[in-house]
Amino acid sequence: MRDVAVIGIGIQRWGELWERSLRDLFVEAALNAIRDAGVERIDSMYVGCMSPGLFIGQEHLGSLLADYLGVCPIPALRVESACASGGMAVRAGFIEVASGLSDIVLVGGVEKMTDVSSGGATYALATAADAEYEVYQGATFPGLYAMVARDYMRRYGLTREQLAQVAVKNHDNGALNPHAQFPSKLSLEAVMTSTMVADPLRLMDCSPITDGAAVAILCPLNMANELSKQPPVKISGVGAATDHIALHDRKDFCEFSATVAACERAYKMAGVGPEQIDFAEVHDCFTIAELCVIEALGFFPRGTAGQATWAGETARTGKKPINTSGGLKSKGHPVGATGVGQIHELVTQLRGAAGARQVPGVKRGLAQNMGGSGGSTVVHILEVV
Amino acid sequence: MRDVAVIGIGIQRWGELWERSLRDLFVEAALNAIRDAGVERIDSMYVGCMSPGLFIGQEHLGSLLADYLGVCPIPALRVESACASGGMAVRAGFIEVASGLSDIVLVGGVEKMTDVSSGGATYALATAADAEYEVYQGATFPGLYAMVARDYMRRYGLTREQLAQVAVKNHDNGALNPHAQFPSKLSLEAVMTSTMVADPLRLMDCSPITDGAAVAILCPLNMANELSKQPPVKISGVGAATDHIALHDRKDFCEFSATVAACERAYKMAGVGPEQIDFAEVHDCFTIAELCVIEALGFFPRGTAGQATWAGETARTGKKPINTSGGLKSKGHPVGATGVGQIHELVTQLRGAAGARQVPGVKRGLAQNMGGSGGSTVVHILEVV
Repeated sequence: MRDVAVIGIGIQRWGELWERSLRDLFVEAALNAIRDAGVERIDSMYVGCMSPGLFIGQEHLGSLLADYLGVCPIPALRVESACASGGMAVRAGFIEVASGLSDIVLVGGVEKMTDVSSGGATYALATAADAEYEVYQGATFPGLYAMVARDYMRRYGLTREQLAQVAVKNHDNGALNPHAQFPSKLSLEAVMTSTMVADPLRLMDCSPITDGAAVAILCPLNMANELSKQPPVKISGVGAATDHIALHDRKDFCEFSATVAACERAYKMAGVGPEQIDFAEVHDCFTIAELCVIEALGFFPRGTAGQATWAGETARTGKKPINTSGGLKSKGHPVGATGVGQIHELVTQLRGAAGARQVPGVKRGLAQNMGGSGGSTVVHILEVV
Repeated sequence: MRDVAVIGIGIQRWGELWERSLRDLFVEAALNAIRDAGVERIDSMYVGCMSPGLFIGQEHLGSLLADYLGVCPIPALRVESACASGGMAVRAGFIEVASGLSDIVLVGGVEKMTDVSSGGATYALATAADAEYEVYQGATFPGLYAMVARDYMRRYGLTREQLAQVAVKNHDNGALNPHAQFPSKLSLEAVMTSTMVADPLRLMDCSPITDGAAVAILCPLNMANELSKQPPVKISGVGAATDHIALHDRKDFCEFSATVAACERAYKMAGVGPEQIDFAEVHDCFTIAELCVIEALGFFPRGTAGQATWAGETARTGKKPINTSGGLKSKGHPVGATGVGQIHELVTQLRGAAGARQVPGVKRGLAQNMGGSGGSTVVHILEVV
């Protein structure tokens, strides 16, 4: 397998982007990434998108987006793994470059979520759960994650304040991110008194509905300096894994075992462990998810992530900064784009180009992107060469 | 890149399978393939499916189907390229094995199309076209392919009888296929007098709405004999390509340029040309599609495929047998499964196991699977080792 590098990244400010369609959003991010890399051709592309069929009545995004980007007849394929679709697109592109089949591969993610009613968005998102055994019984994602939160509180004594601190910390970071949907600080009180969605989760525990896209350009590491003037960032580890799709089939609600399996593979490939990761972007679709995930990644012992968050250990200035971008909570969660947006943040930090939210001296970062209530997960480890 | 072989195939009889759900269909075909290969583990899997969101309200098939197949925590990913989703799953699995990342990769396709009304199926299928510029103006796929047929007739003098002969020939083959949805012979008169759908295309020019799945097991060629008792079939060429998604953006309605580009790549990888292909499975979603495709593949000069079909050259006993399985027309077209179903037929023929429809002495076959009105295409060349 050839070593693979990221040589370009592109995004736009995420939000409720009424004036732009899915194809506009993707092409905008793709052109930004192509310009950033300075490449003159693309050999193949992958698009992560969760449900364009339900959100905008459009499937076949490979053809549509290659067409609108003006790169036909290159191969172009949509991949889908619910909210992990973007990370899976990065993994698919990584494998294609590593295989030797293609040299310059564009990997992107996109979702246009605001063209349906809020009920339509809730229905579309619920298709990431087990339709027959969860959704038809009335489960939605806030409800599923609320059960995880209840179980976690009961077992480990997590307080409501500790949980809220995840949102406070991520908004502290997102307030410094020009691409964030909600770049505003949030007080603990604002989280604690926001509208109840699914007890104990309140509105400010939940990531928002977002339109957006993100794109990265991959190439073989040994061609990076010839193809681009950007300092290459190596993808040193990749891992993906699955778990039972339905929460009720899991042995342990609070152990995200797909994340455990995916990061084990990524750590092994990169030859490092969790202690060698300087910072990470993780899938905080709900505040409780961030706590379970940073334990599954081995950053903190089981049951301690709430205390660690409260103590500031996951803050930008802490010993393991988590979601320097603002995370899904503040940056936004255009589901298919989220995993590529994480890669955008890692590369930005590793280039030392994160401005006011830059973590000094970072050399290695990890991105964890998951689908549904954890039924699929993909992990990437990126590092300065 | 490592050489890749197919060591197992599985399918069920396709049709209107009211008593089985999508997950049942996929797992049935997967277990058949695993049993056929005789493997004891799967390292990774890809699922081609066009629109489970619109057909059954379920996305996240990677997690769902890995779960129901009992193979968690392996990586599992859905890929989508409209009706070419199945072929794209095979290509994705090919790349993963070729890269060295995984050894035993399960690639499958599935679609459950009969759980919505016929209007719902037409809407879901139309999402393979350009929603904003074709579908919202009233275009459906029979209408789009009817325009291709009209243009072809005008330019090349194709007769209605020649076009109908495609369906007659494919039903002659499908009548001998135990997995076919409509395993019955069809007379020229029956095609010519069937209900008009979109002039000049009649009902018997159109592939049906179908439930079904198909699965193949891939591994490195040099491990095939150790992993399986089946004679390995080598995937010697793979090519994928895109074209403008909307028909009105193409320079030439009758030239399927994504098929031209995809087969060029596959021929180059395999080191052969169209004259070295003994037989092929092609994407006859409508009779006119088969004619355009076998010209794009270089089997017949432009404008002559109708005459060649009428003269029996594409019959099972002709010099270039096309769609020995019965094609989409007779075997059925569960869209996401179709491309893997084509691989099932190639492997069956190359093993000499096709029974009454066996083409004697075949050593090399080609599968062509396309999405929409030709906006994406994937081609595989398989051969006896």
